[in-house]
Amino acid sequence: MSSIGDELHRFAAELYPICRSITGDGIRRTLKAIQRHIPLQFSEVPTGTTVFDWTVPKEWNIRDAYIKDGSGRRVVDFRENNLHVLNYSVPIHATMSLSEIRPHLFTIPEHPDWIPYRTSYYKEDWGFCLSHNQLTAMADGSYEVCIDSTLADGNLTYGEYFLPGGSSDEILISCHACHPSLANDNLSGLTVATALARELTERANRNYSYRFLFLPGTIGSITWLARNREAASRIRHGLVLTCIGNQAAFHYKKSRRGDAEIDRAVAHVLSHLTDAAEILEFSPYGYDERQYCSPGFNLAVGCLMRSVWGTFPEYHTSADNLNFIKPQCLAESLRVCAAALEVLENNKRYRNLNPFCEPQLGRRGLYRPTGGDSIAGEINARLWVLNLSDGEHSLLDIAQRARLPFSAILEAANLLQANGLLELVAPETRAEEDLPTNALKRNTAPNF
Amino acid sequence: MSSIGDELHRFAAELYPICRSITGDGIRRTLKAIQRHIPLQFSEVPTGTTVFDWTVPKEWNIRDAYIKDGSGRRVVDFRENNLHVLNYSVPIHATMSLSEIRPHLFTIPEHPDWIPYRTSYYKEDWGFCLSHNQLTAMADGSYEVCIDSTLADGNLTYGEYFLPGGSSDEILISCHACHPSLANDNLSGLTVATALARELTERANRNYSYRFLFLPGTIGSITWLARNREAASRIRHGLVLTCIGNQAAFHYKKSRRGDAEIDRAVAHVLSHLTDAAEILEFSPYGYDERQYCSPGFNLAVGCLMRSVWGTFPEYHTSADNLNFIKPQCLAESLRVCAAALEVLENNKRYRNLNPFCEPQLGRRGLYRPTGGDSIAGEINARLWVLNLSDGEHSLLDIAQRARLPFSAILEAANLLQANGLLELVAPETRAEEDLPTNALKRNTAPNF
Amino acid sequence: MSSIGDELHRFAAELYPICRSITGDGIRRTLKAIQRHIPLQFSEVPTGTTVFDWTVPKEWNIRDAYIKDGSGRRVVDFRENNLHVLNYSVPIHATMSLSEIRPHLFTIPEHPDWIPYRTSYYKEDWGFCLSHNQLTAMADGSYEVCIDSTLADGNLTYGEYFLPGGSSDEILISCHACHPSLANDNLSGLTVATALARELTERANRNYSYRFLFLPGTIGSITWLARNREAASRIRHGLVLTCIGNQAAFHYKKSRRGDAEIDRAVAHVLSHLTDAAEILEFSPYGYDERQYCSPGFNLAVGCLMRSVWGTFPEYHTSADNLNFIKPQCLAESLRVCAAALEVLENNKRYRNLNPFCEPQLGRRGLYRPTGGDSIAGEINARLWVLNLSDGEHSLLDIAQRARLPFSAILEAANLLQANGLLELVAPETRAEEDLPTNALKRNTAPNF
Repeated sequence: MSSIGDELHRFAAELYPICRSITGDGIRRTLKAIQRHIPLQFSEVPTGTTVFDWTVPKEWNIRDAYIKDGSGRRVVDFRENNLHVLNYSVPIHATMSLSEIRPHLFTIPEHPDWIPYRTSYYKEDWGFCLSHNQLTAMADGSYEVCIDSTLADGNLTYGEYFLPGGSSDEILISCHACHPSLANDNLSGLTVATALARELTERANRNYSYRFLFLPGTIGSITWLARNREAASRIRHGLVLTCIGNQAAFHYKKSRRGDAEIDRAVAHVLSHLTDAAEILEFSPYGYDERQYCSPGFNLAVGCLMRSVWGTFPEYHTSADNLNFIKPQCLAESLRVCAAALEVLENNKRYRNLNPFCEPQLGRRGLYRPTGGDSIAGEINARLWVLNLSDGEHSLLDIAQRARLPFSAILEAANLLQANGLLELVAPETRAEEDLPTNALKRNTAPNF
Repeated sequence: MSSIGDELHRFAAELYPICRSITGDGIRRTLKAIQRHIPLQFSEVPTGTTVFDWTVPKEWNIRDAYIKDGSGRRVVDFRENNLHVLNYSVPIHATMSLSEIRPHLFTIPEHPDWIPYRTSYYKEDWGFCLSHNQLTAMADGSYEVCIDSTLADGNLTYGEYFLPGGSSDEILISCHACHPSLANDNLSGLTVATALARELTERANRNYSYRFLFLPGTIGSITWLARNREAASRIRHGLVLTCIGNQAAFHYKKSRRGDAEIDRAVAHVLSHLTDAAEILEFSPYGYDERQYCSPGFNLAVGCLMRSVWGTFPEYHTSADNLNFIKPQCLAESLRVCAAALEVLENNKRYRNLNPFCEPQLGRRGLYRPTGGDSIAGEINARLWVLNLSDGEHSLLDIAQRARLPFSAILEAANLLQANGLLELVAPETRAEEDLPTNALKRNTAPNF
Repeated sequence: MSSIGDELHRFAAELYPICRSITGDGIRRTLKAIQRHIPLQFSEVPTGTTVFDWTVPKEWNIRDAYIKDGSGRRVVDFRENNLHVLNYSVPIHATMSLSEIRPHLFTIPEHPDWIPYRTSYYKEDWGFCLSHNQLTAMADGSYEVCIDSTLADGNLTYGEYFLPGGSSDEILISCHACHPSLANDNLSGLTVATALARELTERANRNYSYRFLFLPGTIGSITWLARNREAASRIRHGLVLTCIGNQAAFHYKKSRRGDAEIDRAVAHVLSHLTDAAEILEFSPYGYDERQYCSPGFNLAVGCLMRSVWGTFPEYHTSADNLNFIKPQCLAESLRVCAAALEVLENNKRYRNLNPFCEPQLGRRGLYRPTGGDSIAGEINARLWVLNLSDGEHSLLDIAQRARLPFSAILEAANLLQANGLLELVAPETRAEEDLPTNALKRNTAPNF
């Protein structure tokens, strides 16, 4: 049987060749491939639609692109690698000299074998990206330049999967689906999110509802937020998944709030499940957390990465390919996400029903029978849960103070509850403090 | 004249041979020995009494115990060391083979000369503890096994000494008195607590009332708390004293609250009086602070130790003997306790009667007469007291912010008050914030 | 053209020879010299005036002082260096033996070439300060001792410059002007404060009013505060400037509040403009911040220094001369002060008018036109301002969270406001939280 890591990698390999952009058939084909695993719903938003301060752009589609030399040989060929075309290039078909073409060519001199990835979404332009070696091999002379693209009124497409749970409170998983043949950024996010959605679908009970968004970066999340302000107000926790397939320590960028439950849950899980993870402060640039954490929304949405975008040499180049992401890294990222959601699903508050002194665990078979020198880890977890279950501390609070894995604290709480020693504190008391902060309240329009 | 350290060690030596347990004549004899120094009151609580979730156990007494070999020689002899018997062993008198006895024998292979200390309070059993060398010297064959004990309805005994002071607010000093021939754990606590009680008795003025408890670990503090909920509600600060006689740096385990006045007072005193002391976060295992800090009580009770229980090899073995505790260490522990109580006794708030600009200390003879380069420590303390005496900062707050010993700050406050520069802020304002936290309030039964 | 550093140093050189003290013509001449640059107002407060707990002392003036040997040669001569006389010496003219004079002589044996600076303001005395070499060269025998001074009823003099601004809220700049020929302590403060006042006078708009005080240390600030309690209540931020001319890293001592806006502004500016600056906690000794930060006032006044008074060997000796202060250091200190005031002047709160998602900076020409790998610093600043402009965060809050210089954040805010993306939040909401703390409120007399 194939491992989940291999499965994820194969799915990434299937999606890799598609030429995605923020609109067009590339992202549609990608979403359809995801739809084979989870019942994704498509939204098509027409060009020209106003979404907050933005306007949905024209739809871009491309069939072919090349630069042919005098002999008719394709020296730059879109069919070989879709990074070769400046993403969102307007059509062109002309013959021109190298010096005329030169301002439209992009290379990375310091990595002469790599093709850069460039876009020009909001300024109409055309161009080619190529390896520096390709460029230096191009002799002066006349070339045929062709970009067989269309940039025309159409739609912006995104995919959405809503998975209802016991509460209307939502957990958001969002990833951008607009990058062409780049594996870590962001086939890693797409494949892990898909697998996570499938796992949650199969789960017997969900305390939260889940919403998975696969959308074009920036304009996609802006479009979704503009069209779903009520749903957005139900998001209690969220994660943007990006660059989570390569072999590197995890980096988690906290939400704008900085101390949201998702921030604490992910940090906790990373500290117990992985090595050398780093927790980063929020900053207002990055991926779609920029929009979710804009001051009007201020949602508790962080961003999980392995390498941080922009900081690894392969970022936005042809070297971010299928070799750059590893099956075991994709699998581990999936485990981390699942564990963080497990924390959120179970992060309840209990009340110790014997708050005065310890209950006698021994006569319930919950303590070691003979006085010894050391105290086993499970007993330790039970004592922590009993001591801090005052209706104020959540299980995550307890796990953090006890420096024990959440799973150990949860197991202790379940056991103690089964033994009549704990009662669940009604979750209503939680909702209030998870509401958006003042910033949002003040900015909220009446119809929000 | 004998030093206080020698006195304490002699008292420990007097108590050392007694075979104590959580009930029985051993603890009674121990409390009577303490009663020769302070007017201890005894409580006898009958077997079967319900104390919160627990039940007072049967009373255990023992006269003799041994294992005799075929020649009638005692190869394990309770009269040599009372650790030899599994504490709370039920009576037995039988002849059996070594292999039958074997499951009832406890040794420490890695310290073959040491006898372990084991108990079986809540599961009826019998056993012997012996050195591993003794065990290996036992040939196969038949042995006479005898434990001349009784486990029968009786009483649980604890000793209590209440020392009234200017206020009904109480400071608790608690130590467990249930361990047999173990010196650091806890003859060190018993002897230091006794000396501390004697010193406080002789003190002219006490702002607080004091309550000293000498009781069996766990079941003793549970029993006391169950029978004294009103008194417990008057406890403002408390210390559990344990393992404070050996030569090691101090360790102070904070109360569950973590920032209680006792926590700050002990940390302050240790930082100024001792080297390399470590302050430990609260955890729900340990000695009787577990009960005092259960969520229903949440008392401001910390635990002062030198070596931490369970972390030193001699712990719960015959190597925790009279050589392991040192007169000068017992004396220093007494000084630390006294200094911490001195902080609590004097941790008042004052109001600077000349709050606008500094008062002119010079004309009162409280400043250096000639302008010089440096400022003497005493002047420094006076300026700190004047600057922070705004009715909000306590003297401990000031000492901590000034990084000066509490004693220097107290001396400055007394001098400034004597010079009419400070007035005491009525202590009523303190009571409220020292009340138990919400956790307790919520869990408090009406009759508490 | 001369640099500002050279100008400041020349001004210090002009003031250097004057024999200043806490009263008398020395400080008057100094203030008159400052008056040539800024329209200083003089206050003359009569001897005997009660100022809080203090009394304005007699006025001291001196014309000459010397010790002549048997041959009539001046072996100690006030005309050579005014440090030679114990400041505030009462007059004397007598012939006496060296052994009789000896208790009135002060030297620094470890720096045998240096003359110490000593005062006796509040105890009538006389004395001479001289180099240890001078002392050892004095043979036994008879000397003529003369101090031609007067200590008589008169006035205490201070200079004040009030510069009105858009608000009645004030920023205080205070420096002591009572030290004789000592350059770093405090001609550095006087000259930098004068230049700062001149710069602010020339500034087109001032949001704050400014008050510059040049006064005798301790008694001067006490006198000013006693006579100006209403003005004091309008001081929102303040700086004491002292020892800011020598070549050393900056030290900023925080106000008693510890987290006042001035504390944060200076720390921010030092971290971006200078190397190795150190931020010191408040302490109740030092210069006039002692009085401004007395508990009744508790003003947000910190103290900016390069070397900390009392910690450098030249402190209060003749080695604190014009060579010890450097033009470029004076100039840098001026820049730091100006930058800190610039922060206060501009530390406003804005509200993002597009709080839901990012506004589209690109179509306003505020974003990079082509998608690239890195994000320029200016874009970064704009995104931070947009993200945190929720009406709660000030620009300094944003600069600190973004770890960007305030100037970059201010520039971004101005640009965004000019583009209609931000609106200023009415400053009324700020006033309240900058009010004095409870300590002051409680201690405030009704007529304050």
